[in-house]
Amino acid sequence: MPHPTRDDLRLEAVLHALSDPMRLRIVRELAADGDELSCSQFELPVTKSTSTHHFRVLREAGVIRQNYRGTAKMNGLRREDLDDLFPGLLDALLAAAARQEARLGG
Amino acid sequence: MPHPTRDDLRLEAVLHALSDPMRLRIVRELAADGDELSCSQFELPVTKSTSTHHFRVLREAGVIRQNYRGTAKMNGLRREDLDDLFPGLLDALLAAAARQEARLGG
Repeated sequence: MPHPTRDDLRLEAVLHALSDPMRLRIVRELAADGDELSCSQFELPVTKSTSTHHFRVLREAGVIRQNYRGTAKMNGLRREDLDDLFPGLLDALLAAAARQEARLGG
Repeated sequence: MPHPTRDDLRLEAVLHALSDPMRLRIVRELAADGDELSCSQFELPVTKSTSTHHFRVLREAGVIRQNYRGTAKMNGLRREDLDDLFPGLLDALLAAAARQEARLGG
């Protein structure tokens, strides 16, 4: 699975990747867990193919790294790359998402 | 021109609005200026209709407020609303955009 290098990450693509509620939710769960999670560990209210699409958008934007462990596709947040390129941005985005959830409910 | 109320602002829509290079540039110029600017003060390398579209997306997401002063359409950043709902987010986004520009060039 192709991944952009750190140098190829673009702010616009990262923001686009996070502009969808399901993708934002995936990123929040990965950030909260702090470790890799398999696609099947996310209980998203969407079809399998939609879910696959969302993970791919996140991977192609450089927000997550995907790799196979046996037959499971694992997903990890590229926090180090994001923090290096855009210090403070990911935390600000996660805080904004948490605040919105508190305001509006899940 | 309809504007979402502060309560109607959504993080996902704000991120979508900022996920385009031209729209990000508009927001950066408004933030740097600190005051309202007319559409014609932005020298964007796009057609007039594309430019109008970008301003509308920003307005509908609640990122900018537009109003007519005489025949000029003026644009102002909704910094107070954004900072109230998502403290620190706008500044983190502006900093990330500035950092990317320094890294890649204009």
